[in-house]
Amino acid sequence: MRDEFAKIEWLKTRFALDGESEKVLVGIGDDAAVIDFGSRPTIVTVDTQVEGVHFRTELLSCRELGYRAMVAAVSDVWAMAGMPTASVIALTLPAALSDEDFRELIDGLAGAARTTGARVIGGNLSQGPSLSVTTTVFGLPISESLTRRGAQPGDSIYVTGTLGSAALGLAVLQAGRLDLEGAERFAERWKRPPLNGSAATVLARIATAAVDVSDGCLQDLEHLAAASGVGAVVHAEAIPTAPGYRAACDALSVDPNVLALSGGEDYELLFTARASSEAAALGTEIGEIVEGSGARVVDASGSTIEIGRSGFRHFS
Amino acid sequence: MRDEFAKIEWLKTRFALDGESEKVLVGIGDDAAVIDFGSRPTIVTVDTQVEGVHFRTELLSCRELGYRAMVAAVSDVWAMAGMPTASVIALTLPAALSDEDFRELIDGLAGAARTTGARVIGGNLSQGPSLSVTTTVFGLPISESLTRRGAQPGDSIYVTGTLGSAALGLAVLQAGRLDLEGAERFAERWKRPPLNGSAATVLARIATAAVDVSDGCLQDLEHLAAASGVGAVVHAEAIPTAPGYRAACDALSVDPNVLALSGGEDYELLFTARASSEAAALGTEIGEIVEGSGARVVDASGSTIEIGRSGFRHFS
Repeated sequence: MRDEFAKIEWLKTRFALDGESEKVLVGIGDDAAVIDFGSRPTIVTVDTQVEGVHFRTELLSCRELGYRAMVAAVSDVWAMAGMPTASVIALTLPAALSDEDFRELIDGLAGAARTTGARVIGGNLSQGPSLSVTTTVFGLPISESLTRRGAQPGDSIYVTGTLGSAALGLAVLQAGRLDLEGAERFAERWKRPPLNGSAATVLARIATAAVDVSDGCLQDLEHLAAASGVGAVVHAEAIPTAPGYRAACDALSVDPNVLALSGGEDYELLFTARASSEAAALGTEIGEIVEGSGARVVDASGSTIEIGRSGFRHFS
Repeated sequence: MRDEFAKIEWLKTRFALDGESEKVLVGIGDDAAVIDFGSRPTIVTVDTQVEGVHFRTELLSCRELGYRAMVAAVSDVWAMAGMPTASVIALTLPAALSDEDFRELIDGLAGAARTTGARVIGGNLSQGPSLSVTTTVFGLPISESLTRRGAQPGDSIYVTGTLGSAALGLAVLQAGRLDLEGAERFAERWKRPPLNGSAATVLARIATAAVDVSDGCLQDLEHLAAASGVGAVVHAEAIPTAPGYRAACDALSVDPNVLALSGGEDYELLFTARASSEAAALGTEIGEIVEGSGARVVDASGSTIEIGRSGFRHFS
């Protein structure tokens, strides 16, 4: 299957349309795919995962990479309260990539596409010096699109799931410390971003603004605050972390608060809403929106804590 | 502007919405873009250009690369008789890329987006070991989507413009032979794929099948024939080439027919249609669709000519 067209033939089979196929008018194998999104607005997002930057093949199998690349891109659709409907994938493959690894990569992408609803309808294969996966995902807004721009003073700030576990998992893998208590669980959390599809449905009803936590909670919150023209206060003691998280951070000599607030790649949903039992059922309240600008972290006494590193940032 | 977010701020300005903005509900800077495609099917295509594979920065400026990447992707929309409406771009940038080159790249992309109608509504920036540009383009079918699948025995085969000039231009650049008669023109033809938007409008009315010539005319024709379940015969003497093309091929010791039929990157439109004056006004008739399978080339006496290299192929 060294040949591009042999690969495409296999991909046509692999991504054979299942269910809902009336909406895909032209699928894989033509110049472009044609899909009928119906008469509603369409959400479009694109994300790239590059070998050596977003992942290292020593730490992540090709199957895990495929799964992760798709869910990371879909996460942006959920953060806009959208329901993923389709995707196109552009793969850059090094000449040395084995057929086995190629199949595993596609299986990972396909598995995540099936799980999230972002069915693969087309794509592009290209050779290149290093492995990279660019995923474009389409979605339908569940009600109207949720953006980063609607947060208002008095809103509470919530986050789904826990923070820091993905960054801890990566740290564990990089340090080769899978012997630590719970290490496998954290490593797995880094490899498999959470599936927040049902959370997105609730966000559509209650959130005033949302963003997915990809660059680090504090940095993503700063972006939400800037887009909304407001300020944000986060209570350090309210940050939700997983069982065993703080002990593992101690063992690796990393600051648990810094990692939770700036570690990145959590792919949880950070949202603002009027405080309600429904919001509290969906996420943990970590702070509040205030007049002003920027995001600051305070301790239990209300004093500001400096968080050194403000999230994963390219080109810094 | 080394910083990702500084780049994004600049991109928001650079791709500021102009015209038709009511259709873009959420633009650059959020998790995803939201566009209202109305109630018609949407064409989606994705294409990647990788440094060292599709281009070399010695031969192509960043501005030219941007322009070329966008038009090459848009070309797939035209081949489906679509009107480009929007695009999202995923850029992988080496750390050493200068701000000047980054701006030039974006200017090239933006210029082509404006010219073709594929307005940039979102994207992703990522660092990586080599420069690559992945362009996802959306389009509206002008009538219903044209595919590769409708060719019928008795149809004539047409191609817009001329063939081989782009491959010749690349050969000229690689050989450092800009001194040859017409060399600048061929080099320019490789750098700037043709704008076939108005041809797409006519295709919507008259074509039975179409494909854009990216991998080489003969190879792309084989794909069209296979998709349609028919065979194709091409008359070598009918191949349209540019003035000075054959002389320049001779000077470089390349076979003009082989280059025209297999050189690739022409980005012209190859289509099948019932012979008509309208079809002949749009393209040059180069052969006919027959019963059977595959594509073969014949000389003036009807004897089959072997064309050695069958187009640009990744992973071969």
